[in-house]
Amino acid sequence: MSSKFAIGVDYGTESGRAVLVRLSDGAEIAEHVTPYRHGVMDEKLPVSGYKLELDWALQHPTDYIEVLETSVPAVMKAAGIQPDEVIGLGIDFTACTMLPVDEAGRPLCWDQAFSDNPHSWVKLWKHHAAQDEANLINEIAARRGEQFLVRYGGKISSEWMIAKAWQILNEAPEIYTAADKFVEAADWVIGQMTGNIVRNSCTAGYKSIWHKQEGYPSADFFKELDPRLEQLTETKLRGDVLPLGTKAGGLTAAMAERMGLKAGTAIAVGNVDAHAAVPAVGVVTPGKLVMAMGTSICHLLLSSEEKTVEGMCGVVEDGIVPGYFGYEAGQSAVGDIFAWFVDESVPAYAAEAAKQEGVSVHEWLEKYAAELKPGESGVLALDWWNGNRSVLVDTDLTGLFVGLTLLTKPHEMYRALLEATAFGTRKIIEAFHGSGVAVEELYACGGLPQKNRLLMQIYADVTNREIKIAASKQTPALGAAMFGAVAAGASAGGYDTIVEAAQRMARVQEETFKPIPANVAVYNKLYAEYNALHDYFGRGANDVMKRLKAIKEQAGML
Amino acid sequence: MSSKFAIGVDYGTESGRAVLVRLSDGAEIAEHVTPYRHGVMDEKLPVSGYKLELDWALQHPTDYIEVLETSVPAVMKAAGIQPDEVIGLGIDFTACTMLPVDEAGRPLCWDQAFSDNPHSWVKLWKHHAAQDEANLINEIAARRGEQFLVRYGGKISSEWMIAKAWQILNEAPEIYTAADKFVEAADWVIGQMTGNIVRNSCTAGYKSIWHKQEGYPSADFFKELDPRLEQLTETKLRGDVLPLGTKAGGLTAAMAERMGLKAGTAIAVGNVDAHAAVPAVGVVTPGKLVMAMGTSICHLLLSSEEKTVEGMCGVVEDGIVPGYFGYEAGQSAVGDIFAWFVDESVPAYAAEAAKQEGVSVHEWLEKYAAELKPGESGVLALDWWNGNRSVLVDTDLTGLFVGLTLLTKPHEMYRALLEATAFGTRKIIEAFHGSGVAVEELYACGGLPQKNRLLMQIYADVTNREIKIAASKQTPALGAAMFGAVAAGASAGGYDTIVEAAQRMARVQEETFKPIPANVAVYNKLYAEYNALHDYFGRGANDVMKRLKAIKEQAGML
Repeated sequence: MSSKFAIGVDYGTESGRAVLVRLSDGAEIAEHVTPYRHGVMDEKLPVSGYKLELDWALQHPTDYIEVLETSVPAVMKAAGIQPDEVIGLGIDFTACTMLPVDEAGRPLCWDQAFSDNPHSWVKLWKHHAAQDEANLINEIAARRGEQFLVRYGGKISSEWMIAKAWQILNEAPEIYTAADKFVEAADWVIGQMTGNIVRNSCTAGYKSIWHKQEGYPSADFFKELDPRLEQLTETKLRGDVLPLGTKAGGLTAAMAERMGLKAGTAIAVGNVDAHAAVPAVGVVTPGKLVMAMGTSICHLLLSSEEKTVEGMCGVVEDGIVPGYFGYEAGQSAVGDIFAWFVDESVPAYAAEAAKQEGVSVHEWLEKYAAELKPGESGVLALDWWNGNRSVLVDTDLTGLFVGLTLLTKPHEMYRALLEATAFGTRKIIEAFHGSGVAVEELYACGGLPQKNRLLMQIYADVTNREIKIAASKQTPALGAAMFGAVAAGASAGGYDTIVEAAQRMARVQEETFKPIPANVAVYNKLYAEYNALHDYFGRGANDVMKRLKAIKEQAGML
Repeated sequence: MSSKFAIGVDYGTESGRAVLVRLSDGAEIAEHVTPYRHGVMDEKLPVSGYKLELDWALQHPTDYIEVLETSVPAVMKAAGIQPDEVIGLGIDFTACTMLPVDEAGRPLCWDQAFSDNPHSWVKLWKHHAAQDEANLINEIAARRGEQFLVRYGGKISSEWMIAKAWQILNEAPEIYTAADKFVEAADWVIGQMTGNIVRNSCTAGYKSIWHKQEGYPSADFFKELDPRLEQLTETKLRGDVLPLGTKAGGLTAAMAERMGLKAGTAIAVGNVDAHAAVPAVGVVTPGKLVMAMGTSICHLLLSSEEKTVEGMCGVVEDGIVPGYFGYEAGQSAVGDIFAWFVDESVPAYAAEAAKQEGVSVHEWLEKYAAELKPGESGVLALDWWNGNRSVLVDTDLTGLFVGLTLLTKPHEMYRALLEATAFGTRKIIEAFHGSGVAVEELYACGGLPQKNRLLMQIYADVTNREIKIAASKQTPALGAAMFGAVAAGASAGGYDTIVEAAQRMARVQEETFKPIPANVAVYNKLYAEYNALHDYFGRGANDVMKRLKAIKEQAGML
């Protein structure tokens, strides 16, 4: 039994969080959060005040280092342990969050010659200004019949590496030229700790169209995008792609001092937040769908085979757990829809009643929604308030309510929204299961599952599958720490594989949510209705949602 | 130029209102309201306290007389005129509001032998407990291929005379036997003033399946409903049916004294509220659709021909203006939907903002909705919160929103609801127009038009027709007074026809709402989308609304 520790650092959109974990049992001994000093830069650049256009979202790479220098010493101090007791460190990051660096691995934005140019900074995952490039990538790839498209549900996102790199070339060729490499922020932060930038199989696979056997798309494809891109993958995207859990290197003496750790501590290659959560709930084998549930849902699943599944966001070998194909799917809005409803559609009397009962509006709605039987409200919704990510891959789809009457109450509409997102997940499950990628049980982590019992019961009833809930509130950070322990290896008191680490360190809550047969029967009927509307509005029978959006855009220009 | 006056009495659901009108120009000199002492009796009977079942709605006939004794003297006093200056009186009533009377025309509920029996009382228009009888009427009529069905859009309502009379037979045969006649409350009140009950062509036609040429349905049909009903129309529904504007008789000396009028004053036959409003806005010829707009909309239209129009509520010769076929259609919820939205779907921040701006929530929503261009919200609705009355005639249809996003705001959804009801009216207009019953312009009266400018502009834009707004706030009462003047005749200082009365007395506001071409163009596109959804959900392609309702009912029984 190891008495050592590892640290996981979870880099979110607004802050970074370090969690110190005991390797023997996964206990989370201490945690500390450091908000990013510059937050999300979506209005102007620091110092110069350069004004950013709509859809831009940048970050300051120095903020990431500040997290290491602040939160790591803080958890060490809180736990009262010695540097040599920490044998490994891993991180998880938002993705694709990317930046251009020079030959020395320094961000171009640190160079005064470039710092006034917005393209020298970190482009955050939700930087959406490369949509034109993404559209062209998809158009040209489809025309050429590029096989890689099917691995991404037929669509490369504007959030991903190639679109963002191309935008730099189009709008700031001098930055493109000056960049020695484009790297994921995850890989860059790891490089800052080890002195050597390597790429990880997760972000390379899911965000940079990299494939373990086939590598990147062909130079010919890139040449057709733009002749100047022909050598992109051999130059600015060059570098080894290592499987998750690989040791990227040892902590440099300089960084060890700034972080209060021991020089040489094993540093794992980077990872993505939701993906790191998978082993942290104990999932290291096929058949178990992990749902990272928050404002949206990211669905992750392992399989021994590479299959084509309608609308998946990506399938990547070694992308989640080495040795397996990792599948990702997603719903683009879940908690966001519930929040919209609470903000924009809950009447004053309900807000007042919640206040008097001393609960939040969410809790008040859940309480009364929980008193309804499935189907009792007569209300059904399509959960497309932010488009549909899986399986339709269509951002132009919109939300729908049907079954409204003069007697319809807010908690009935709220329950219909919970159910609609569950139907959306069932649709994804059926797409996987029907394509030969089995889904037997569900695991839930993230912000929603631990505080929304009704939601979890509805998901169990709608999918007719048992749901296990993560015990940790910081599942991605726990997963990152586990990969840190694997990078250190058993000989150092860690683990040789993520499977072993998961056996010891991963935890789910004792209580699980089991489907209630009577509810399952009603939800089968309601799902059939959801499904019919899903296909009618989503597969071309009636493109009213797209036409309304087109009319809306025309009206906005008048 | 006549210097005489007439009185119109408008009998609503909760109260009666007398309006004293100058015949020379239709000026409303005085008005007075008397709330019904017993209101709507939907829980228990007076005196005995007998508990009523769900869906019952009764009234006390004495309350109607109290209106005459209270409000008529009040307007006379307020106007300071002499009894001989009032030459005629007309009334309009909710319908079908019916009661059983004995040989003397006395309500059976006035007889102590029957007053404990709820079936002896007035059944108000919204008494909905005769649904089983209505279902059987429709089933049997359809099976027999009864031609009268097409005059009523294929459906006889549970609110109407035959269903209510049959319910009395089924549940209280002793009341049925004791009843000498079943009469509309409108006809009964007139009978109380003249000493002689006659029936009017409006309620007989729209509510009792009476036809000027064909009379009532055959004895054979009634026999098939129930052998005991075979003689219904020759016995308990017997009596002359007189066209609107006919003098039912002169005011009896006894009633003249109680009302403060002159004995012998001309009393017109009864009428229905929305129907009386038609000449009161000056409509006495074909092509002009009158919309009585409130919680719902009643659409009324004249034509020289009897046509079959999909989903109309009724077509009756002399039913609105003598000499024409009067067509009725309707939307079962309009203002009710807006009220639902304000009550159940407007967030606390909007209610708070309205308060701070010193306006009602309705006004606040209208203000911001008015700033939107047509189509700018991207939201579309189907206005079926209370089913669809015309043209689908289906109470099982429900409301729908499509086009919702995380950025959708309450005033956008509100505008979509206003537009949806306008699309519903356009659907009715197209049904008439397309069946050869021309609709050239629109007239609006009732509670909504005078205070909702945005709503009126949307109706003009959606229907591409000019809309004139009633000048009177009491259009039905004004119409009733006009019919009173016609009952008196020109020789007495009144008018010989309702056309002449309308020329002198009817008024609309100077300002009209004219379609704005740019808006019309966008609404043509949005209406095409409404229409596609209307047919998809309403004509059997996807009966999801009915299935959701069935699931709801099953869930409610668990």
